[in-house]
Amino acid sequence: MNPDIQSQTSPMKQNRTIPVYVGHTIIGGGRPVIMAGPCAVESKEQMLRIGRAVADAGADVLRGGAYKPRTSISSFQGLGLEGLEYLRDTGGILGLPVITEVISPVDVELVGRFTDILQIGSRNMHNYPLLLEVGRTTKPVLLKRGYAATVEEWLAAADYIAAGGNNQIILCERGIRTFTSQTRNTFDISAICLAKMQSTFPVIADPSHAAGIPELVPHLARAAIAAGADGLLIEVHDRPEEALCDGQQALSPQVFRELVRTVRKMTEV
Amino acid sequence: MNPDIQSQTSPMKQNRTIPVYVGHTIIGGGRPVIMAGPCAVESKEQMLRIGRAVADAGADVLRGGAYKPRTSISSFQGLGLEGLEYLRDTGGILGLPVITEVISPVDVELVGRFTDILQIGSRNMHNYPLLLEVGRTTKPVLLKRGYAATVEEWLAAADYIAAGGNNQIILCERGIRTFTSQTRNTFDISAICLAKMQSTFPVIADPSHAAGIPELVPHLARAAIAAGADGLLIEVHDRPEEALCDGQQALSPQVFRELVRTVRKMTEV
Amino acid sequence: MNPDIQSQTSPMKQNRTIPVYVGHTIIGGGRPVIMAGPCAVESKEQMLRIGRAVADAGADVLRGGAYKPRTSISSFQGLGLEGLEYLRDTGGILGLPVITEVISPVDVELVGRFTDILQIGSRNMHNYPLLLEVGRTTKPVLLKRGYAATVEEWLAAADYIAAGGNNQIILCERGIRTFTSQTRNTFDISAICLAKMQSTFPVIADPSHAAGIPELVPHLARAAIAAGADGLLIEVHDRPEEALCDGQQALSPQVFRELVRTVRKMTEV
Amino acid sequence: MNPDIQSQTSPMKQNRTIPVYVGHTIIGGGRPVIMAGPCAVESKEQMLRIGRAVADAGADVLRGGAYKPRTSISSFQGLGLEGLEYLRDTGGILGLPVITEVISPVDVELVGRFTDILQIGSRNMHNYPLLLEVGRTTKPVLLKRGYAATVEEWLAAADYIAAGGNNQIILCERGIRTFTSQTRNTFDISAICLAKMQSTFPVIADPSHAAGIPELVPHLARAAIAAGADGLLIEVHDRPEEALCDGQQALSPQVFRELVRTVRKMTEV
Repeated sequence: MNPDIQSQTSPMKQNRTIPVYVGHTIIGGGRPVIMAGPCAVESKEQMLRIGRAVADAGADVLRGGAYKPRTSISSFQGLGLEGLEYLRDTGGILGLPVITEVISPVDVELVGRFTDILQIGSRNMHNYPLLLEVGRTTKPVLLKRGYAATVEEWLAAADYIAAGGNNQIILCERGIRTFTSQTRNTFDISAICLAKMQSTFPVIADPSHAAGIPELVPHLARAAIAAGADGLLIEVHDRPEEALCDGQQALSPQVFRELVRTVRKMTEV
Repeated sequence: MNPDIQSQTSPMKQNRTIPVYVGHTIIGGGRPVIMAGPCAVESKEQMLRIGRAVADAGADVLRGGAYKPRTSISSFQGLGLEGLEYLRDTGGILGLPVITEVISPVDVELVGRFTDILQIGSRNMHNYPLLLEVGRTTKPVLLKRGYAATVEEWLAAADYIAAGGNNQIILCERGIRTFTSQTRNTFDISAICLAKMQSTFPVIADPSHAAGIPELVPHLARAAIAAGADGLLIEVHDRPEEALCDGQQALSPQVFRELVRTVRKMTEV
Repeated sequence: MNPDIQSQTSPMKQNRTIPVYVGHTIIGGGRPVIMAGPCAVESKEQMLRIGRAVADAGADVLRGGAYKPRTSISSFQGLGLEGLEYLRDTGGILGLPVITEVISPVDVELVGRFTDILQIGSRNMHNYPLLLEVGRTTKPVLLKRGYAATVEEWLAAADYIAAGGNNQIILCERGIRTFTSQTRNTFDISAICLAKMQSTFPVIADPSHAAGIPELVPHLARAAIAAGADGLLIEVHDRPEEALCDGQQALSPQVFRELVRTVRKMTEV
Repeated sequence: MNPDIQSQTSPMKQNRTIPVYVGHTIIGGGRPVIMAGPCAVESKEQMLRIGRAVADAGADVLRGGAYKPRTSISSFQGLGLEGLEYLRDTGGILGLPVITEVISPVDVELVGRFTDILQIGSRNMHNYPLLLEVGRTTKPVLLKRGYAATVEEWLAAADYIAAGGNNQIILCERGIRTFTSQTRNTFDISAICLAKMQSTFPVIADPSHAAGIPELVPHLARAAIAAGADGLLIEVHDRPEEALCDGQQALSPQVFRELVRTVRKMTEV
């Protein structure tokens, strides 16, 4: 962030962020990148249906979890390898790069064969063996902030990835745990700014996990873009009541389409 | 907030907020209202100097504290009655309505004679005798959220003001206390949205107290406006190193001027 | 707290706490002082009934609120002057000093005529005009920690009381607001130790507000005494389901009696 | 915890905790178990020196980290295999069972060959692949609470261990992250009680990480025992200024000896 006055009030101006390239998609290059899709890959058909919807709406990257870290061992834990295949195939059909989470060092090589971006979830921000392992790959890594981690700890976690030679790191703010209860987490807009000021990594925002309710998501998304975020990670589901994971916070495809339109309008020259 | 798609993604659209009128200034009427000035009234000359700067930059309301609730009894506690006079006189010269904080029920009548808006600070959100007292006046009241209050508690505090018959209430989010330390408070952008959804009061944002450092203020201000805030409360000082209160978080008049310009551009039709 | 090894592990040993005297009761003199009674004075009969029960069980001071600061304006706000009379009369009959909360500077003189100890509640820790006013009286003041205040801020609030010449201050830890939800607040046992290390005031514990459920109260009470607290403030009610305020966290007289017995056993020579 | 009055106020009374056996040591059997040693194994000589000191003082289990999860990749990360050997050898010489942390699923088998108890650190409470892996061993597992995890999440994490058939789980409270800054974490004494009420696992306390400063450790340790904890995990170092990890919070052997004496006195019949 340049010290001159204009940069302080012009979020869209280029700062010293070093972009991350994913195929033709540039993250941190000025145009906000929108990653979207369901929380979890549930079936081939579901992935294709929602994938098409978010692609049509203008998403740049397709998301979908195959390995889900869940509080309860009784909750749906993801389709695993099968899910990876559905995600990759859907991305191929739609011509979109894909992102999915990896939760164990032993899975990194496998997951890396199916995805364009490796995602480290909030609960694994301090999982140093996992960070070191993704740092040894050549894949871009999206590193979510731990739900109670400081910005300093978040950047220090990125160092574990970079230590393996992999500097293609995208940071993602997703809300922190506070005393409030009306939202799932407290979206920490300042952390986006601080992370950008204190690193050269692109920083995107996940308003879905922060809000926990769809009504807030477009508001938080706009706020993130206005504050200077390099993109968004949005959960979208067309049948939220049937979703196997976090359906209650997903946007409908229609609301998502409106959001993309608004974001594009906010950042056009 | 209307349930239709467009309202979800168009922050500037009118919702069911009932505006508060302060002279010719309409708070909650669609156009963001910008209140600005020094944290504390320090002298007649300082008030006029900074008042002129913020008026020139486009502020709608002039702020300045005459009674300052301070953690340490050794800190500057405000000029009291003298400060009220300087504030009122400056507002008169510049043609701007003024806002100042009242911290004791016994002072409400006096402070009300000098100000256009009565401010209840974050530390007094639970001060029910004070809330009841300002509720008995005919002055608009700006109610800051307690630094660890939920949105429900904040709205319940507004009920104490309304109980006296005074419904001219403006809510103000100013950040909450969390585990983070790089910012003075954690700016809770979601609270702005929730307060608007759950009440008919205008909701404005105080990014200065949330950030605690000037570099973040314009970012948070833009985020607040993008999320739908009805205005901003900004600390401005031209000689922050000499300020008797919170100088470290004040914007310079130049940066403030840029911020006003950006906010106006964000919300023009 | 002395720097030698033994004092580090002997909570009952005298440290440099300067005791506060309330009639024949010494707070901070080595023997834990137990203040107990209902959250609110509800009637003459209720006060006498519960007062007798806690006196029989061994309480040193009788509590009961006549002015209740409540989140909702619709909640029972206390009996006011009538409540003060019932409390004073019950204390007189039982031969126990009494403690009650004052919430407005204008009430300090009145409340002081009825009570032996003036209580400042958690929500008023930052209410500086109120602190200054009780500091001008000759009554001991119990200062609860703000529910999101640091120990530094708590001690700084005590300075406002002391500024008026009143050094008879008793600090009271009552839990802080955190992300947890199974307890009403998070009982901060470390704060008791830090407040004792950093001041000469007696420090007591209110496990009732911290826990919010009666099952935890005796555990937290024992913990506080073991950590070195100078006493306890305990809510007791014999008909919790009928209580007009916070009945869900009150101990029954029987459980309270057991607790007093345990505390006395813990600290006997 | 039994519903009768006495159990509510008698922490030392047997509740329905199912003990975990480690050699001749019974955790959760009524007598508090004290685990102690340095944060990290630094050398053969250091381990033997401190091991002897804590054994002499009355510790039941020897601790020492060989794999250290550190915020900064530049910090000492532990001696690894070499550290495991020093720890095991020292335990063998002193006749004490040992406990050490494992941070990666791939290391579980190796670490299990050297230790009597496998420790899961706070940052790995949500590391489900690791929890599943230790659940497949026959070693007792000490599961620290995540530094921002609720009690429900903590118990749900234990389910991941139990899912593999391993029910020898010891829970360990070590403080949570809150707005306070004078302590490293906020020791949550209520969580010890809640975890005991809501599970059959023994629950011990780590006051060292909670406090972050040695002066508080004995106070918090006593509080934990008084609240009903089944034991303590204490960091001890005889040359804290030379320690490679967390020396600033370690007790000296002398203070530790006093603490053991006090704890034994508190719980003798």
